[in-house]
Amino acid sequence: MSQATNTLTPPVLSKDDLLEHWQGHRSLTRKVIAAFPENEFFNFSIGGMRTFSEITKELLGIAAPGIEEIVTGKTASFQRDFGTHTSKEDFLKLWDKDSEKISSLWTQIPEERFQERIKAFGQYEGTVISSIQYYMDNEIHHRAQGYVYLRALGIEPPHFYDR
Amino acid sequence: MSQATNTLTPPVLSKDDLLEHWQGHRSLTRKVIAAFPENEFFNFSIGGMRTFSEITKELLGIAAPGIEEIVTGKTASFQRDFGTHTSKEDFLKLWDKDSEKISSLWTQIPEERFQERIKAFGQYEGTVISSIQYYMDNEIHHRAQGYVYLRALGIEPPHFYDR
Repeated sequence: MSQATNTLTPPVLSKDDLLEHWQGHRSLTRKVIAAFPENEFFNFSIGGMRTFSEITKELLGIAAPGIEEIVTGKTASFQRDFGTHTSKEDFLKLWDKDSEKISSLWTQIPEERFQERIKAFGQYEGTVISSIQYYMDNEIHHRAQGYVYLRALGIEPPHFYDR
Repeated sequence: MSQATNTLTPPVLSKDDLLEHWQGHRSLTRKVIAAFPENEFFNFSIGGMRTFSEITKELLGIAAPGIEEIVTGKTASFQRDFGTHTSKEDFLKLWDKDSEKISSLWTQIPEERFQERIKAFGQYEGTVISSIQYYMDNEIHHRAQGYVYLRALGIEPPHFYDR
Protein backbone atom coordinates (compact mmCIF):
# COMPACT_ATOMS: atom_id res chain seq x y z
CA MET A 1 0.00 0.00 0.00
CA SER A 2 1.41 3.39 -0.91
CA GLN A 3 2.10 5.99 1.72
CA ALA A 4 -0.30 8.37 0.03
CA THR A 5 -3.20 5.88 0.12
CA ASN A 6 -2.49 4.96 3.70
CA THR A 7 -2.44 8.56 4.80
CA LEU A 8 -5.79 9.33 3.19
CA THR A 9 -7.68 6.14 3.97
CA PRO A 10 -9.58 5.93 7.27
CA PRO A 11 -9.27 2.53 8.98
CA VAL A 12 -11.83 -0.18 8.15
CA LEU A 13 -12.43 -0.34 11.91
CA SER A 14 -10.86 1.95 14.50
CA LYS A 15 -9.68 0.83 17.91
CA ASP A 16 -12.18 3.18 19.59
CA ASP A 17 -15.09 1.89 17.50
CA LEU A 18 -14.19 -1.70 18.33
CA LEU A 19 -14.28 -0.96 22.07
CA GLU A 20 -17.59 0.88 21.73
CA HIS A 21 -18.99 -2.06 19.78
CA TRP A 22 -17.88 -4.53 22.44
CA GLN A 23 -19.15 -2.40 25.32
CA GLY A 24 -22.49 -2.17 23.49
CA HIS A 25 -22.61 -5.96 23.44
CA ARG A 26 -21.58 -6.15 27.09
CA SER A 27 -24.39 -3.77 27.96
CA LEU A 28 -26.85 -6.06 26.16
CA THR A 29 -25.47 -9.18 27.87
CA ARG A 30 -25.92 -7.39 31.20
CA LYS A 31 -29.60 -6.86 30.34
CA VAL A 32 -29.99 -10.55 29.53
CA ILE A 33 -28.48 -11.52 32.92
CA ALA A 34 -30.79 -9.01 34.62
CA ALA A 35 -33.85 -10.40 32.79
CA PHE A 36 -33.48 -13.85 34.41
CA PRO A 37 -35.43 -14.61 37.56
CA GLU A 38 -32.96 -15.31 40.41
CA ASN A 39 -33.74 -19.02 40.63
CA GLU A 40 -33.73 -19.70 36.88
CA PHE A 41 -30.42 -17.88 36.43
CA PHE A 42 -28.83 -20.62 38.55
CA ASN A 43 -31.01 -23.60 37.72
CA PHE A 44 -32.74 -23.44 34.33
CA SER A 45 -31.33 -25.07 31.21
CA ILE A 46 -32.36 -26.83 27.99
CA GLY A 47 -31.00 -29.96 26.34
CA GLY A 48 -28.43 -30.67 29.04
CA MET A 49 -26.64 -27.38 28.44
CA ARG A 50 -25.27 -25.12 31.15
CA THR A 51 -27.35 -22.70 33.19
CA PHE A 52 -27.00 -19.02 32.30
CA SER A 53 -25.01 -18.40 35.50
CA GLU A 54 -22.47 -21.00 34.34
CA ILE A 55 -22.37 -19.37 30.91
CA THR A 56 -21.87 -15.98 32.57
CA LYS A 57 -18.94 -17.44 34.50
CA GLU A 58 -17.37 -18.50 31.21
CA LEU A 59 -17.84 -15.02 29.75
CA LEU A 60 -16.40 -13.39 32.91
CA GLY A 61 -13.51 -15.82 32.72
CA ILE A 62 -12.62 -14.75 29.18
CA ALA A 63 -13.19 -11.02 28.57
CA ALA A 64 -11.30 -9.03 31.20
CA PRO A 65 -8.69 -11.78 31.84
CA GLY A 66 -8.13 -12.06 28.07
CA ILE A 67 -7.55 -8.32 27.68
CA GLU A 68 -5.34 -8.24 30.77
CA GLU A 69 -3.23 -11.01 29.21
CA ILE A 70 -2.87 -8.96 26.01
CA VAL A 71 -1.78 -5.90 27.97
CA THR A 72 0.54 -7.56 30.50
CA GLY A 73 1.82 -10.52 28.50
CA LYS A 74 1.14 -12.73 31.51
CA THR A 75 -0.70 -15.93 30.56
CA ALA A 76 -4.37 -15.82 31.56
CA SER A 77 -6.21 -18.71 33.17
CA PHE A 78 -9.85 -19.74 32.73
CA GLN A 79 -9.86 -20.75 36.39
CA ARG A 80 -11.48 -17.69 37.85
CA ASP A 81 -12.65 -18.06 41.41
CA PHE A 82 -16.35 -17.24 41.86
CA GLY A 83 -16.45 -18.69 45.36
CA THR A 84 -18.59 -16.17 47.21
CA HIS A 85 -20.70 -14.93 44.30
CA THR A 86 -24.04 -16.61 44.74
CA SER A 87 -26.60 -14.03 43.70
CA LYS A 88 -27.45 -12.50 40.34
CA GLU A 89 -26.61 -9.11 41.84
CA ASP A 90 -23.07 -10.34 42.57
CA PHE A 91 -22.66 -11.34 38.93
CA LEU A 92 -23.95 -7.99 37.71
CA LYS A 93 -21.44 -6.19 39.94
CA LEU A 94 -18.61 -8.35 38.59
CA TRP A 95 -19.85 -7.66 35.07
CA ASP A 96 -19.75 -3.89 35.60
CA LYS A 97 -16.35 -4.02 37.24
CA ASP A 98 -14.97 -5.99 34.30
CA SER A 99 -16.52 -3.62 31.76
CA GLU A 100 -14.69 -0.74 33.41
CA LYS A 101 -11.49 -2.77 33.56
CA ILE A 102 -11.69 -3.59 29.85
CA SER A 103 -12.09 0.10 28.95
CA SER A 104 -9.21 1.03 31.17
CA LEU A 105 -6.91 -1.70 29.81
CA TRP A 106 -7.93 -0.84 26.24
CA THR A 107 -6.00 2.43 26.40
CA GLN A 108 -2.87 0.38 27.03
CA ILE A 109 -3.08 -1.57 23.75
CA PRO A 110 -1.31 0.44 21.05
CA GLU A 111 -2.94 0.18 17.58
CA GLU A 112 0.11 -1.51 16.12
CA ARG A 113 -0.34 -4.47 18.46
CA PHE A 114 -3.68 -5.63 17.01
CA GLN A 115 -1.97 -7.65 14.26
CA GLU A 116 0.60 -9.09 16.69
CA ARG A 117 0.59 -12.88 17.01
CA ILE A 118 -0.23 -14.17 20.51
CA LYS A 119 -1.14 -17.45 22.22
CA ALA A 120 -4.35 -16.57 24.04
CA PHE A 121 -4.78 -18.22 27.45
CA GLY A 122 -1.46 -19.84 26.76
CA GLN A 123 -2.87 -22.09 24.05
CA TYR A 124 -4.97 -20.45 21.31
CA GLU A 125 -2.80 -19.13 18.49
CA GLY A 126 -3.97 -16.05 16.68
CA THR A 127 -3.55 -12.31 16.64
CA VAL A 128 -4.65 -9.74 19.19
CA ILE A 129 -7.55 -8.75 16.91
CA SER A 130 -8.62 -12.33 16.11
CA SER A 131 -8.56 -13.18 19.84
CA ILE A 132 -10.71 -10.16 20.71
CA GLN A 133 -13.11 -11.03 17.88
CA TYR A 134 -13.36 -14.54 19.30
CA TYR A 135 -14.15 -13.22 22.79
CA MET A 136 -16.89 -10.98 21.39
CA ASP A 137 -18.35 -13.63 19.07
CA ASN A 138 -18.35 -16.16 21.89
CA GLU A 139 -20.27 -13.70 24.07
CA ILE A 140 -22.89 -13.13 21.34
CA HIS A 141 -23.16 -16.89 20.79
CA HIS A 142 -23.67 -17.85 24.43
CA ARG A 143 -25.83 -14.85 25.21
CA ALA A 144 -28.20 -16.10 22.51
CA GLN A 145 -28.59 -19.31 24.53
CA GLY A 146 -29.85 -17.03 27.26
CA TYR A 147 -32.37 -15.56 24.81
CA VAL A 148 -33.77 -19.02 24.13
CA TYR A 149 -33.88 -19.84 27.85
CA LEU A 150 -35.80 -16.61 28.53
CA ARG A 151 -38.26 -17.31 25.70
CA ALA A 152 -38.75 -20.85 26.97
CA LEU A 153 -39.50 -19.32 30.39
CA GLY A 154 -42.07 -17.03 28.81
CA ILE A 155 -39.92 -13.93 29.42
CA GLU A 156 -39.43 -11.30 26.72
CA PRO A 157 -35.66 -10.78 26.25
CA PRO A 158 -34.19 -7.34 25.48
CA HIS A 159 -34.09 -6.34 21.81
CA PHE A 160 -30.92 -7.47 20.04
CA TYR A 161 -30.23 -3.92 18.90
CA ASP A 162 -30.69 -2.50 22.43
CA ARG A 163 -27.07 -1.82 23.37
CA MET B 1 -2.93 11.04 13.41
CA SER B 2 0.42 11.90 11.86
CA GLN B 3 1.34 10.71 8.41
CA ALA B 4 4.36 8.87 9.80
CA THR B 5 2.28 6.95 12.33
CA ASN B 6 -0.32 6.04 9.75
CA THR B 7 2.27 4.76 7.34
CA LEU B 8 3.87 2.50 9.91
CA THR B 9 0.81 1.25 11.77
CA PRO B 10 -0.95 -1.84 10.39
CA PRO B 11 -4.77 -1.60 10.49
CA VAL B 12 -6.61 -2.82 13.61
CA LEU B 13 -8.61 -5.00 11.22
CA SER B 14 -7.99 -5.31 7.50
CA LYS B 15 -10.71 -5.58 4.88
CA ASP B 16 -9.42 -9.02 3.82
CA ASP B 17 -9.38 -10.32 7.41
CA LEU B 18 -12.94 -9.10 7.97
CA LEU B 19 -14.16 -11.03 4.92
CA GLU B 20 -12.27 -14.15 5.99
CA HIS B 21 -13.78 -13.83 9.46
CA TRP B 22 -17.30 -13.53 8.05
CA GLN B 23 -16.86 -16.39 5.60
CA GLY B 24 -15.60 -18.51 8.51
CA HIS B 25 -18.85 -17.75 10.33
CA ARG B 26 -20.88 -18.45 7.19
CA SER B 27 -19.15 -21.80 6.89
CA LEU B 28 -20.12 -22.61 10.48
CA THR B 29 -23.74 -21.50 9.93
CA ARG B 30 -23.84 -23.78 6.88
CA LYS B 31 -22.80 -26.69 9.12
CA VAL B 32 -25.58 -25.85 11.58
CA ILE B 33 -28.17 -25.86 8.76
CA ALA B 34 -26.75 -29.17 7.52
CA ALA B 35 -26.93 -30.68 11.03
CA PHE B 36 -30.73 -30.34 11.21
CA PRO B 37 -32.90 -33.27 10.19
CA GLU B 38 -35.02 -32.26 7.18
CA ASN B 39 -38.31 -32.21 9.08
CA GLU B 40 -37.01 -30.36 12.14
CA PHE B 41 -35.35 -27.71 10.00
CA PHE B 42 -38.83 -26.67 8.88
CA ASN B 43 -40.91 -27.52 11.93
CA PHE B 44 -39.00 -27.53 15.23
CA SER B 45 -38.92 -24.55 17.56
CA ILE B 46 -38.79 -23.61 21.26
CA GLY B 47 -40.73 -20.99 23.20
CA GLY B 48 -42.78 -19.82 20.23
CA MET B 49 -39.69 -18.74 18.29
CA ARG B 50 -39.15 -19.27 14.60
CA THR B 51 -38.01 -22.53 13.03
CA PHE B 52 -34.40 -22.64 11.85
CA SER B 53 -35.55 -22.50 8.21
CA GLU B 54 -37.31 -19.20 8.97
CA ILE B 55 -34.18 -17.92 10.73
CA THR B 56 -32.11 -19.00 7.72
CA LYS B 57 -34.46 -17.01 5.49
CA GLU B 58 -33.79 -13.93 7.60
CA LEU B 59 -30.03 -14.46 7.35
CA LEU B 60 -30.25 -14.99 3.58
CA GLY B 61 -32.37 -11.86 3.36
CA ILE B 62 -29.72 -9.74 5.04
CA ALA B 63 -26.17 -10.79 4.10
CA ALA B 64 -25.84 -10.78 0.31
CA PRO B 65 -28.63 -8.20 -0.24
CA GLY B 66 -27.01 -5.95 2.40
CA ILE B 67 -23.61 -6.12 0.72
CA GLU B 68 -25.17 -5.61 -2.70
CA GLU B 69 -26.86 -2.46 -1.37
CA ILE B 70 -23.50 -1.17 -0.10
CA VAL B 71 -21.89 -1.78 -3.48
CA THR B 72 -24.67 -0.57 -5.76
CA GLY B 73 -26.27 2.11 -3.57
CA LYS B 74 -29.68 0.66 -4.48
CA THR B 75 -31.89 0.21 -1.39
CA ALA B 76 -32.15 -3.45 -0.36
CA SER B 77 -35.39 -5.12 0.68
CA PHE B 78 -35.89 -7.84 3.29
CA GLN B 79 -38.61 -9.28 1.07
CA ARG B 80 -36.65 -12.00 -0.62
CA ASP B 81 -38.71 -14.53 -2.49
CA PHE B 82 -38.07 -18.11 -1.35
CA GLY B 83 -41.08 -19.46 -3.25
CA THR B 84 -39.75 -22.70 -4.66
CA HIS B 85 -37.14 -23.52 -2.02
CA THR B 86 -38.67 -26.22 0.07
CA SER B 87 -35.80 -28.54 0.97
CA LYS B 88 -32.79 -28.09 3.20
CA GLU B 89 -30.62 -28.79 0.14
CA ASP B 90 -32.20 -25.79 -1.62
CA PHE B 91 -31.26 -23.57 1.33
CA LEU B 92 -27.69 -24.87 1.36
CA LYS B 93 -27.37 -24.11 -2.36
CA LEU B 94 -28.66 -20.58 -1.81
CA TRP B 95 -26.25 -20.21 1.10
CA ASP B 96 -23.27 -21.21 -1.04
CA LYS B 97 -24.34 -18.97 -3.90
CA ASP B 98 -24.61 -16.01 -1.52
CA SER B 99 -21.23 -16.74 0.07
CA GLU B 100 -19.65 -16.53 -3.38
CA LYS B 101 -21.61 -13.39 -4.17
CA ILE B 102 -20.43 -11.71 -0.95
CA SER B 103 -16.79 -12.47 -1.73
CA SER B 104 -17.21 -11.19 -5.26
CA LEU B 105 -18.98 -7.98 -4.18
CA TRP B 106 -16.41 -7.45 -1.41
CA THR B 107 -13.74 -6.58 -3.98
CA GLN B 108 -15.95 -3.69 -5.07
CA ILE B 109 -15.98 -1.96 -1.66
CA PRO B 110 -12.94 0.32 -1.45
CA GLU B 111 -11.37 0.53 2.02
CA GLU B 112 -12.22 4.21 2.35
CA ARG B 113 -15.93 3.42 2.18
CA PHE B 114 -16.08 1.44 5.46
CA GLN B 115 -16.51 4.62 7.54
CA GLU B 116 -19.07 6.07 5.11
CA ARG B 117 -22.52 6.74 6.58
CA ILE B 118 -25.35 4.74 5.01
CA LYS B 119 -28.99 3.92 5.67
CA ALA B 120 -29.03 0.13 5.52
CA PHE B 121 -32.14 -1.40 3.97
CA GLY B 122 -33.33 2.15 3.55
CA GLN B 123 -33.86 2.63 7.28
CA TYR B 124 -30.98 1.68 9.62
CA GLU B 125 -28.52 4.53 10.02
CA GLY B 126 -24.90 3.66 10.55
CA THR B 127 -21.67 3.21 8.67
CA VAL B 128 -20.68 0.54 6.18
CA ILE B 129 -18.58 -1.16 8.88
CA SER B 130 -21.23 -0.94 11.61
CA SER B 131 -23.83 -2.37 9.22
CA ILE B 132 -21.59 -5.29 8.27
CA GLN B 133 -20.81 -5.89 11.97
CA TYR B 134 -24.55 -5.97 12.62
CA TYR B 135 -25.12 -8.52 9.84
CA MET B 136 -22.38 -10.75 11.25
CA ASP B 137 -23.45 -10.39 14.88
CA ASN B 138 -27.05 -11.09 13.94
CA GLU B 139 -25.94 -14.29 12.18
CA ILE B 140 -23.97 -15.44 15.25
CA HIS B 141 -26.93 -14.60 17.48
CA HIS B 142 -29.58 -16.47 15.48
CA ARG B 143 -27.28 -19.36 14.63
CA ALA B 144 -26.92 -19.91 18.39
CA GLN B 145 -30.69 -20.45 18.54
CA GLY B 146 -30.04 -23.26 16.10
CA TYR B 147 -27.44 -24.68 18.51
CA VAL B 148 -30.04 -24.82 21.29
CA TYR B 149 -32.61 -26.40 18.96
CA LEU B 150 -30.07 -29.07 17.96
CA ARG B 151 -29.17 -29.79 21.60
CA ALA B 152 -32.85 -29.99 22.51
CA LEU B 153 -33.22 -32.52 19.67
CA GLY B 154 -30.34 -34.54 21.08
CA ILE B 155 -28.06 -33.65 18.15
CA GLU B 156 -24.44 -32.58 18.72
CA PRO B 157 -23.90 -29.22 16.96
CA PRO B 158 -20.60 -28.36 15.22
CA HIS B 159 -17.91 -26.85 17.46
CA PHE B 160 -18.13 -23.06 17.67
CA TYR B 161 -14.51 -22.75 16.57
CA ASP B 162 -15.04 -25.05 13.56
CA ARG B 163 -15.04 -22.51 10.73
